[in-house]
Amino acid sequence: MSDLNDYIVTLAKAAKKASVGLRTLSADTKNAALQAIAGSIEARRADIRAGNAKDVERGKKAGLSSAMVDRLTLTDKRIDEIITSLREIAGLEDPVGEIIGVRRPAGFVLEKVRTPIGVIAMIYESRPNVTVDAAALCLKSGNAAILRGGSEALESSKVLVECIREALSRVGVDGNAVQYVERTEHEAIDHLVQQTGLIDLVVPRGREALIRRVTENATVPVIKHYKGVCHIYVDETADLSMAAEVVTNSKVQRPGTCNALEKLLVEESVAERFLPMVRQTMPNVELRGDERVRSILPGTKLATEEEWYEEYLDLILTVKVVKSLEEAAAHIEKYGSSHTDGICSSDARHIEQFVSLVDSAVVTVNASTRLNDGGIFGLGAELGISTDKLHARGPMGLKELTTYKWVLRGNGDIRK
Amino acid sequence: MSDLNDYIVTLAKAAKKASVGLRTLSADTKNAALQAIAGSIEARRADIRAGNAKDVERGKKAGLSSAMVDRLTLTDKRIDEIITSLREIAGLEDPVGEIIGVRRPAGFVLEKVRTPIGVIAMIYESRPNVTVDAAALCLKSGNAAILRGGSEALESSKVLVECIREALSRVGVDGNAVQYVERTEHEAIDHLVQQTGLIDLVVPRGREALIRRVTENATVPVIKHYKGVCHIYVDETADLSMAAEVVTNSKVQRPGTCNALEKLLVEESVAERFLPMVRQTMPNVELRGDERVRSILPGTKLATEEEWYEEYLDLILTVKVVKSLEEAAAHIEKYGSSHTDGICSSDARHIEQFVSLVDSAVVTVNASTRLNDGGIFGLGAELGISTDKLHARGPMGLKELTTYKWVLRGNGDIRK
Repeated sequence: MSDLNDYIVTLAKAAKKASVGLRTLSADTKNAALQAIAGSIEARRADIRAGNAKDVERGKKAGLSSAMVDRLTLTDKRIDEIITSLREIAGLEDPVGEIIGVRRPAGFVLEKVRTPIGVIAMIYESRPNVTVDAAALCLKSGNAAILRGGSEALESSKVLVECIREALSRVGVDGNAVQYVERTEHEAIDHLVQQTGLIDLVVPRGREALIRRVTENATVPVIKHYKGVCHIYVDETADLSMAAEVVTNSKVQRPGTCNALEKLLVEESVAERFLPMVRQTMPNVELRGDERVRSILPGTKLATEEEWYEEYLDLILTVKVVKSLEEAAAHIEKYGSSHTDGICSSDARHIEQFVSLVDSAVVTVNASTRLNDGGIFGLGAELGISTDKLHARGPMGLKELTTYKWVLRGNGDIRK
Repeated sequence: MSDLNDYIVTLAKAAKKASVGLRTLSADTKNAALQAIAGSIEARRADIRAGNAKDVERGKKAGLSSAMVDRLTLTDKRIDEIITSLREIAGLEDPVGEIIGVRRPAGFVLEKVRTPIGVIAMIYESRPNVTVDAAALCLKSGNAAILRGGSEALESSKVLVECIREALSRVGVDGNAVQYVERTEHEAIDHLVQQTGLIDLVVPRGREALIRRVTENATVPVIKHYKGVCHIYVDETADLSMAAEVVTNSKVQRPGTCNALEKLLVEESVAERFLPMVRQTMPNVELRGDERVRSILPGTKLATEEEWYEEYLDLILTVKVVKSLEEAAAHIEKYGSSHTDGICSSDARHIEQFVSLVDSAVVTVNASTRLNDGGIFGLGAELGISTDKLHARGPMGLKELTTYKWVLRGNGDIRK
């Protein structure tokens, strides 16, 4: 226990020391580092695949599901994607030093300037590409990273982190800017999230149980989402064929993700027309609903009270008929997760009312909830999606990995 | 205990319910509410002074220092200032709904829109005007407020909160948008800061012990500063007479505040010239220092190691001679509080290096640390000054009391 804590403290101190040097790195140096990492990964492709083969073999023996084994496996194509992602992040604008606002309240100039957050700990599961994406995003935003991936991907991540640290040293950046927690005990996470003064932010990503464990134990600020119970409300003015396409895409395009649709709310005057359309556009989806839905679509299973809170991550959709936008918004407020919620409507006033009333990280208007994604938003790769309100909401790209400082440039200005 | 928790939960639930209505309030309604509060306070001036007189009498009996009694006392002039502050906040731009950024990554439009945070709990001490300032800032930024002032100001705050709630109802805003915790037990604070799901943010303001208690017990996010151990570094290129004026103003203009100067770092080649100047411009300040300082200013008391971390809030200044900007920055990193730290220099390269290396909420260049203030920054009244990095740093005005949501406006856009 205490030995484990010492191990974590040593990592965190090294990361904090490295983070001071990162504050003043030029964009050119950071981009050169990212390109060097891409080069290292290209050069050590065989080692990466060998390390990954060990993880896959161990995972199969341990009885991982075939879906899990698939997420764990690094094919040549996936290694190409990691390299492409690094080069894309190198191509993005450096957020550090950006002047967010300027004020001249008196004789002096006041700049609100974007700065790195400091040391970011990322806790995640399975997919080894997250190791490189997280390191690259932190590096480009001037933050030191402490990575703690799932034990099932340890051998893959070890080789990838070697590539990263070796590349950093090659371009003159402190290799300690990227740390990897090799200790696989669950308690390592508990120690990690309590390093107040050394770590500035924890970002957990994975199952709800992991995120709850992190949040409940953390003394360091955490940015996260627990789950995505995403809603679409179809009002009486909606273009129903467009709405059916949007709802279907939201539900079926990749049902296992946090931004997939889980609940459908339909205004009562269009329910009789719209529900059969949805039934037809997603024949492989199990619908569940309230009594009104069952009267329109006989054979629909009755949804339980608990189900309205549930994230299925599966081809199941719960449907409710509502009387008004207010009822829809109140339902989302009560049962939702403030992740991604949308409206299909052609009434501008309705749309504005929904947008200002529904307090979710991402509100969609006549569009698929599946579009909530850092890549699609043009933020570059994302570190995660946040439902928190302090300080990042929605997809977290480079800017969301920074904070700001105020710089007051005077000429002998004093307070009178 | 449990009865106290029930009391807090009831307040918090009412505030959360009111916060939903605040999301969609127009700027006109919010400004009308602020003007109505100003009118109520004007109309009930006698009641306010009577309530305050009870607090002052009780405080004197309880042996409050004369400085504390002074901070507690509401004169007619101070009531005028409260009213002026309300009208000023009414005159500020509404931050809610501001579009912070627009993107068009594909067919759809993506807006990053400023929104209220939700329910903000403010925990503070003594000065009754904070009750009105905090309520007004929260209201204008669309947030419900739960206020917990010091027990010594309870009677004053009760009348002020009556004025606020009565005025809100008069303009058709839910009076529950401003709640006041009348229970004076210390445990009320512990319950308050654990209302996850009902309260979105806690802002404590006061003694370091109060802030530590809040932070250690909170499950809700906290924005705060513990203390202000503010530094100025005077380099070898500084205009020394300007630097002496800036340093003196920073130290003596109001030494009991968090942005007053506590530590002075002087580059060695100018120390012999500069230190006697400072000795002369602040004759009533006790200097303490290292051996080099003592050799230049004989009779100076030797500073202990612990003192470098200390916030005196008094007419004492600790002085150190340093060899370089790097040494100064490393000293600030180790002993500072990331509140307000500055440089006096005429070398543009030095200034940029200091600005990017020193990770403080406010960095001053050739200017007094005392200028770190929401009013002086033009943010309107401030709720406090933050040394946190998520998500508000420095003075917290209206914009710092908001977060954002993403709004994706499509036309049937789906994910392929």
